[in-house]
Amino acid sequence: MLCDLWVKIMTAKTVLIVYAHQSVGSFNAAVKTAAVDELKKQGCRVLVSDLYEVKFKATATEDDITGAVKNPEHFCYGNETMLAWQEERLASDIVDEHKKLKEADLVIFQFPMYWFSVPAIMKGWMDRVLTLGFAYTLEKRYSEGIFRDKKAMLSFTTGSHETMFSSNGINGDMNVTLWPIQNGVLNYCGFQVLAPQIFWAPTHLSPEAREGLLEGWRTRLQGLLNEAPLAFPPADIFDKGKGFQLKPEVREKQADSPFGLTVGHHLEKPLPPQSQMKAGV
Amino acid sequence: MLCDLWVKIMTAKTVLIVYAHQSVGSFNAAVKTAAVDELKKQGCRVLVSDLYEVKFKATATEDDITGAVKNPEHFCYGNETMLAWQEERLASDIVDEHKKLKEADLVIFQFPMYWFSVPAIMKGWMDRVLTLGFAYTLEKRYSEGIFRDKKAMLSFTTGSHETMFSSNGINGDMNVTLWPIQNGVLNYCGFQVLAPQIFWAPTHLSPEAREGLLEGWRTRLQGLLNEAPLAFPPADIFDKGKGFQLKPEVREKQADSPFGLTVGHHLEKPLPPQSQMKAGV
Repeated sequence: MLCDLWVKIMTAKTVLIVYAHQSVGSFNAAVKTAAVDELKKQGCRVLVSDLYEVKFKATATEDDITGAVKNPEHFCYGNETMLAWQEERLASDIVDEHKKLKEADLVIFQFPMYWFSVPAIMKGWMDRVLTLGFAYTLEKRYSEGIFRDKKAMLSFTTGSHETMFSSNGINGDMNVTLWPIQNGVLNYCGFQVLAPQIFWAPTHLSPEAREGLLEGWRTRLQGLLNEAPLAFPPADIFDKGKGFQLKPEVREKQADSPFGLTVGHHLEKPLPPQSQMKAGV
Repeated sequence: MLCDLWVKIMTAKTVLIVYAHQSVGSFNAAVKTAAVDELKKQGCRVLVSDLYEVKFKATATEDDITGAVKNPEHFCYGNETMLAWQEERLASDIVDEHKKLKEADLVIFQFPMYWFSVPAIMKGWMDRVLTLGFAYTLEKRYSEGIFRDKKAMLSFTTGSHETMFSSNGINGDMNVTLWPIQNGVLNYCGFQVLAPQIFWAPTHLSPEAREGLLEGWRTRLQGLLNEAPLAFPPADIFDKGKGFQLKPEVREKQADSPFGLTVGHHLEKPLPPQSQMKAGV
């Protein structure tokens, strides 16, 4: 018994939920609560950054640095915050989030989609917390990224129905809409990106149907930490010495495929189907 | 002479520049100043929303509504701000931006790209100023959108070189990265979207090369208001009665094309080349 408990403690995972909704009565709140409860039931340690609740500062400014900035005439946020991070002079709210992020095995971003992206308060978390040096360097990114031993995923509600976010629908393919966030933020920092959890237009549903969505989410959460991530190309197929262009031999090999490598690396071919939505495709 | 002047005044265009950089010494500041000067020289009225300067509130909260909210238990930002807009109870900074936006013939978003998107403070402008009812309704969007007589464009700097943001480069195709913003924000509200002005990695350039970029921008500005916009599909090719799906006859017609309609409406074909970067392709 004691031995079992010890194994459980040693293998317990830490999950950070970065959460952005204004209302405790919202469906997003219910989704977040379901995740907290289900993950704790599995023995996980769950941390929540409730961005509206703590009035998280969304804007990247000089105030993020304690003390003088190096170049006040030509203030460059990326360089200044990297220096401040090295010298331990970052604002305390950023330091707090760094601490949580370092401890996390999985980060879940929970939000309502605003304008085909995350709400500004969550973009502010990304802009301010994923500090140059701490979260990435030019040498350590993508599959060689700093967070390559961590997982991350988007979990969000939409205002539109699923069919509207298809290649055939008025809003276009959700795989395209997700690419800049899943590739350009999560994969960029090295995270293994789990398939997104999308709650399509819950406000159009009955309370019973919404409860059904939550039940599906609870079921997924039981196996979430063991899920295989979405496929992104390894960084070493791009030639550092030649401006990070795809190596000719990889491009040649791909010539026989009916699809491009990813949504962004489409190589003038049809996009690989559902590659930002489902693992193992 | 007087008659010429009268014609000039009557046809003078108003340009709103939504600007997001922290430093007056930045290259983004120089790009913004070049636009202000060049457009004024043409007789345009130029309005600037300097977001960091005015400490623009980025987060969508209850404070955006004066007086009581309708449903405090289940606060829904979209619905609450639509009602507040109808009842003239929106926060004064949103009202100020609405006024500028109503007067603008062209809106230029000037920013450094952060994480494959706009900085949070600019996302906050989009989240808060593009109010449901004022900027779009479910009936009035895309080519039937409220701002269909206005133009808009992105003008931004990148940290990476141009080749890295190609289908063959490590960051993937910039056309894909731009789709959610240009389609999902600008085109969604009906704006005619002008080709983006992209300043690739200016920090890696010499002062002379940066001046060359500014000179190219000044030249473009001389004809900017007469440029043809990027191509997006008209809203009426999607069937409202059938969940806004592409009408079968349009899909059939597209079957002969080697390319999909747009980046998002790719129809399982190769993406139309450079469709988010260049007009008339």
